[in-house]
Amino acid sequence: MLPRASLPSAFKRRFSLSAVVANRAVVYSKNGDPSEVLTAVTFPDLPPPKPNSVNIRFVLSAVNPADINTIEGVSPSKPTLASDLNTSGPGSKDYPIFVGGNEGLAEVVEVGDGVQGLQKNDWVVMDKPQLGTWSTHRNVAVTDIIKLPFNASDGLSKAHGATMTVNPPTAFNMLKEFVDLKEGDWIVQNGANSAVGKLVIQIASSRGLNTLNLVRARDNLEKLMRSLEELGATRVLTYDDLRDKATRSKIQQWTGGKDIRLGLNCIGGEANTAMVKLLGHGAHLVSYGAMSKQPISLPTSLFIFKNLTSHGFWQTQWSKVHSRKEKEDLIANLSSMMVNGKLKAPEHDIIVLGAKESDEEVTQKIRTIFSDLAQGKYTKKVLIRLEDK
Amino acid sequence: MLPRASLPSAFKRRFSLSAVVANRAVVYSKNGDPSEVLTAVTFPDLPPPKPNSVNIRFVLSAVNPADINTIEGVSPSKPTLASDLNTSGPGSKDYPIFVGGNEGLAEVVEVGDGVQGLQKNDWVVMDKPQLGTWSTHRNVAVTDIIKLPFNASDGLSKAHGATMTVNPPTAFNMLKEFVDLKEGDWIVQNGANSAVGKLVIQIASSRGLNTLNLVRARDNLEKLMRSLEELGATRVLTYDDLRDKATRSKIQQWTGGKDIRLGLNCIGGEANTAMVKLLGHGAHLVSYGAMSKQPISLPTSLFIFKNLTSHGFWQTQWSKVHSRKEKEDLIANLSSMMVNGKLKAPEHDIIVLGAKESDEEVTQKIRTIFSDLAQGKYTKKVLIRLEDK
Repeated sequence: MLPRASLPSAFKRRFSLSAVVANRAVVYSKNGDPSEVLTAVTFPDLPPPKPNSVNIRFVLSAVNPADINTIEGVSPSKPTLASDLNTSGPGSKDYPIFVGGNEGLAEVVEVGDGVQGLQKNDWVVMDKPQLGTWSTHRNVAVTDIIKLPFNASDGLSKAHGATMTVNPPTAFNMLKEFVDLKEGDWIVQNGANSAVGKLVIQIASSRGLNTLNLVRARDNLEKLMRSLEELGATRVLTYDDLRDKATRSKIQQWTGGKDIRLGLNCIGGEANTAMVKLLGHGAHLVSYGAMSKQPISLPTSLFIFKNLTSHGFWQTQWSKVHSRKEKEDLIANLSSMMVNGKLKAPEHDIIVLGAKESDEEVTQKIRTIFSDLAQGKYTKKVLIRLEDK
Repeated sequence: MLPRASLPSAFKRRFSLSAVVANRAVVYSKNGDPSEVLTAVTFPDLPPPKPNSVNIRFVLSAVNPADINTIEGVSPSKPTLASDLNTSGPGSKDYPIFVGGNEGLAEVVEVGDGVQGLQKNDWVVMDKPQLGTWSTHRNVAVTDIIKLPFNASDGLSKAHGATMTVNPPTAFNMLKEFVDLKEGDWIVQNGANSAVGKLVIQIASSRGLNTLNLVRARDNLEKLMRSLEELGATRVLTYDDLRDKATRSKIQQWTGGKDIRLGLNCIGGEANTAMVKLLGHGAHLVSYGAMSKQPISLPTSLFIFKNLTSHGFWQTQWSKVHSRKEKEDLIANLSSMMVNGKLKAPEHDIIVLGAKESDEEVTQKIRTIFSDLAQGKYTKKVLIRLEDK
């Protein structure tokens, strides 16, 4: 839990009177339901950046499910105290506030002394988790951001940039860190229609890997299957198909009897157990989500006689134990795939939090986003743009 | 399933008439319940060994639970056709028979051409799984056996030799292959009172590793705890203790807050889930049995946020993928620990299958062993000695 401090009313009065704001952030001062604890606040212009830091302006920011857990205080990922926003009011040690958001695309506005390799207008993404991306401006250490080697003029979209550091690295690293996959090898994944699932399909396809993709049966199944195949899916099956014994020999035909060497799981429970039985000897199972909220339950014999290894993957942890150079290379790699049309930006809705709206209005708008999200009203990725003029 | 061929009655008549036999084996010709399909047969003297092979005489052989699965045909470990016993009758391709037993101590009787480094009277153990150790004599390729660097004159007991290749390597390798454990590190295991569990305690203790050992609550618990501590157990707890919240802080005190880096599981189900929650960040869980017959069920968060990795261990698989040199080193290492008093032989019952007993009597005796085993009548390891005179 974060320290419980409410925003002082003086602060609210001071910064919500003007009709057009220049600087605004979506913040919280205590853990709880985002639709109750998030508040929009305006703040004075940032001072010039300290040495080895830059002032940035966010172009477009993402709302990720994990952000909700962080705001609720139930995630191991803790937010960073927003000490840059106002040194005497909220954001200082006496009035701790935290800016929401982990992922976003920003451009450099002003460069501090000693900063090398970064210039005004450069596009950057976050290297540090939960830095707080739901803001017009922030002051950040150069070590907390990574410069993108491309921008709009190269054909990189803002939506690409705003969704660069969570799902694409997850998909990329899960295909890289556990099994040394060669062209023609097979992998299987459940939740293939998830944001990460679609990225896995595209990255695997670009590497010449075959994917067996599992999805739920649904009304528009044919359409979904076609859309995944267009992304590069080799084969698509439903969980129900796996109950049919004939499916097993069908898969054998598809793979030419080749062992499936990697399984990616974001569901857990029975959907995972059924998938794991398709894996070959010595395969690796990598879990990165638990949509079913059911545990991973597997017969011990799969571990002993089939030599299965079961891992988890969390990009935040990967970032912690990998070097700056490796992270820069990863981002360069991913953004290059995006520019070359190999990785599509996720389908998304952009919600604009206008400069002319009051803090109260923006607060209401942002809280509604989260109650709508909780009710499953969004089927696409939610991106927010905090206007500064 | 093995080919279903019954022993020809002519064969039975031929070799069960003499009152004192020289060569006898416990064999089966079809899969099934060992107490129904095992048969004792006598066979003529082996011919002189072929080049690069030796004739051996078994001194003492072990009965392992996994042998039962092999005889039942439900194990991935398949037996080897006993083609050495009688080239014209059973054991030939027309009358396939399989000798039971995977583990045993033998001495070299006669050496074939081209054999180097092996002499008459040398003690050897099996390198190949399910070769068939329930026999007085066998002819084996030199690559299927490993010479022991010690024998009775060095203080190595026959019981040590007869139980050298299954449980001690399992315990040794589980402590070596998954985590680079340093002196003072902690591991936790369930089923600590099992044969492997006791070996883990002794090997860990000899390496200066701390063990937290979990056992079932029982009447003579204090006595059991003392006996495990005498073997070198650092701490012993019951599964019930883990339900008590105070236990957690007790463990923290014992470890000095140090993360437990390795968990060894031979139970599965809830006893395993409770144990895994004691593991530290980045720990490894190694499963080598499933006494509860329940699956391994773990919250996905343990994999994602705690970075747990779950493996299986099967010594047969280890042997398949490791070099001859590594296996010889392992056996040298283990037998040296035995000679130096660091590894006790398991408590055992020796059942003598006497040379003066008829095949029918021995058949009855061996079948009774297995029905008694199935009923849990043995609390100690069962070793069998097939007398040849």
